[in-house]
Amino acid sequence: MTPRRISILGATGSIGSSTLDLIRRQRDAWQVVVLTANCQAADLAKLAREFGAELAVVADETCLPALRDALAGSGIASAGGAEALVEAAARPVDLTVSAIVGCAGLAPTMAAIEQGRTVALANKEALVSAGTVMMAAIARHGTTLLPTDSEHNAIFQCLAGNDLAHVRSITLTASGGPFRDWTAQQLAAATPAQAVKHPNWSMGTKISVDSATMFNKGLELIEAHYLFPVGLEKLRIVIHPQSVVHSMVEYRDGSTLAQLGPSDMRVPIASCLAWPSRMETPCAPLDLAALGQLTFCAPDEDRFPATRLCREAVEAGAGAPAALNAANEEAVAAFLAGKLRFTDIAVMVDQVLNRYAPPAPESLADVMAIDTETRAMARAAMELV
Amino acid sequence: MTPRRISILGATGSIGSSTLDLIRRQRDAWQVVVLTANCQAADLAKLAREFGAELAVVADETCLPALRDALAGSGIASAGGAEALVEAAARPVDLTVSAIVGCAGLAPTMAAIEQGRTVALANKEALVSAGTVMMAAIARHGTTLLPTDSEHNAIFQCLAGNDLAHVRSITLTASGGPFRDWTAQQLAAATPAQAVKHPNWSMGTKISVDSATMFNKGLELIEAHYLFPVGLEKLRIVIHPQSVVHSMVEYRDGSTLAQLGPSDMRVPIASCLAWPSRMETPCAPLDLAALGQLTFCAPDEDRFPATRLCREAVEAGAGAPAALNAANEEAVAAFLAGKLRFTDIAVMVDQVLNRYAPPAPESLADVMAIDTETRAMARAAMELV
Repeated sequence: MTPRRISILGATGSIGSSTLDLIRRQRDAWQVVVLTANCQAADLAKLAREFGAELAVVADETCLPALRDALAGSGIASAGGAEALVEAAARPVDLTVSAIVGCAGLAPTMAAIEQGRTVALANKEALVSAGTVMMAAIARHGTTLLPTDSEHNAIFQCLAGNDLAHVRSITLTASGGPFRDWTAQQLAAATPAQAVKHPNWSMGTKISVDSATMFNKGLELIEAHYLFPVGLEKLRIVIHPQSVVHSMVEYRDGSTLAQLGPSDMRVPIASCLAWPSRMETPCAPLDLAALGQLTFCAPDEDRFPATRLCREAVEAGAGAPAALNAANEEAVAAFLAGKLRFTDIAVMVDQVLNRYAPPAPESLADVMAIDTETRAMARAAMELV
Repeated sequence: MTPRRISILGATGSIGSSTLDLIRRQRDAWQVVVLTANCQAADLAKLAREFGAELAVVADETCLPALRDALAGSGIASAGGAEALVEAAARPVDLTVSAIVGCAGLAPTMAAIEQGRTVALANKEALVSAGTVMMAAIARHGTTLLPTDSEHNAIFQCLAGNDLAHVRSITLTASGGPFRDWTAQQLAAATPAQAVKHPNWSMGTKISVDSATMFNKGLELIEAHYLFPVGLEKLRIVIHPQSVVHSMVEYRDGSTLAQLGPSDMRVPIASCLAWPSRMETPCAPLDLAALGQLTFCAPDEDRFPATRLCREAVEAGAGAPAALNAANEEAVAAFLAGKLRFTDIAVMVDQVLNRYAPPAPESLADVMAIDTETRAMARAAMELV
């Protein structure tokens, strides 16, 4: 079998590492074309050498000399800077794993989409901030999008062979985060150190805070809205502290299909790598008898208003989801810096969205402009807090 | 759209009634061809008139005059007897629902299979007693088999779009029956009245006792073995008292797909009727937050040896599953008649299987011969108890 050509945008991060871990287990099946990182030149060069990549790219151009040195004599090409990153993402491959965190991932993700091949999408901003722009490009180029997030990948699997028209509801499961059982009073006093301790998944700081506020689930709801256009009223959230059921789809005949698995990102990534087939992973088998029980409860939007705000942003449409995302990022940064109370993250996002109704973005440039303007507004507002 | 032609073998039973309830909700989509019953002439005639069937058949020929009278002036043809039943099942249709209970369903099910169209199979004996014979006929005639049992239908749905080669395991869920938490001592004293009270499903007497002994789950394991040939060692059973998760498939990448739903047979039947599409049913949406929890535990084969006996029958191969089924039916009848202790049902089945190793059946006649011989042996053995 001819090896499949793959590029990994964000190769040194969590998703990138898990992807390469899987590729390492079936090296003959893959030809690694492009690996990128922000600035981790040594790590990136090591991976590029191990996997025989054609090209290694650092997004931060100031790191290019270090990358060049680290790749000396390897025959592997190197490049640096935002433009080089986009050019690398446009290099033809069978599958692009888009795993750059934040708005920095938008332009390279779009370049990958414009190839018209297959993109495994782990970058949240592509759908949260630029959902309409990205989905239009996907339709225009006939691109196959494989969602890599565990929840969206679960939904994707549960939809296999089914028509969206037959979906009664889609339910995203949420662990509820570390503050699930806290009172409103306790939440108001929550510290950054407490917020970054996630019970089930090992994650970065920003996403851990998002999990604690439930903005993470709200952002996933926005993503689901673009990925699976069944109508916002059919998208549900249920709290499921064990994070064993990753999400569910209920059909109009009363059948619900759910995807379950360990809290290991290699499972959804493997699903994307092998799709529509399946590849072996070393993940432990599910043992429900050992787990004993799976529990579920309704989300409490009084204590955790984030999911409500995210639904409202989808309802407001136009640039509101992009503004919500930017406002939340600024508020989280302020919280982590000790400048904002935990419960004021949602208050701040709500205030920004009430004051600012950005127009519908028609391009990534429009999305970036909304992002920039929202951040400025949010910072100004926080100065006044 | 041209209505699809459908025949329902066993129209007055539980599966037949649920099927007709669904057809009643989309009358224009279906043309009812054949309806059959054992001897319920009045009920059958009423259904045949309501649905404008072409032909109504009673398996028991002595009931034919009553059926003829009840259909007088309707223009609906009628027939009676075993041969007429098989001829009716052979009448060309798009979909046959095979829902006759017991060995009486074997010959008409085979006739439906030999049409080479689609058969929704609810008759357990077809696969438990005649698995190799039926599956060979299905392969030979290119028939599409849709399993109607809630567990097997769940597995069928979870396998959609996937290759059996990628299955790591298939797990049948079991409620555990009314005696799930009983001690061995309590089980020995269990009465027929206690055994027929099933916690989740409303079922007939025989199947309720099978649920209490766990023979029901063992028979389903045998069915799963023929339906989904992944190897006996990949078939699991887990106790799940709420009966919300109907069964699961784990893939080699670590993804598990599960089908969930209410304890309403209209859900799996609707799945068969509409397959590969989906039809609306009036079944209530799944509300996991309201349910609160789903629990799971390992089966206890010391207290409930039936599932072990069923696995052993599959391992023994040849005619052993057919013999097991017949021995169990005789033992259950003796238990219900007060002639055998509850715990002796499994003992009796074990004894018969240890004494009798029937040859591999090559035809339905062979299956019936094994059935007859086993019953005679079981009765003789019970005389000696």
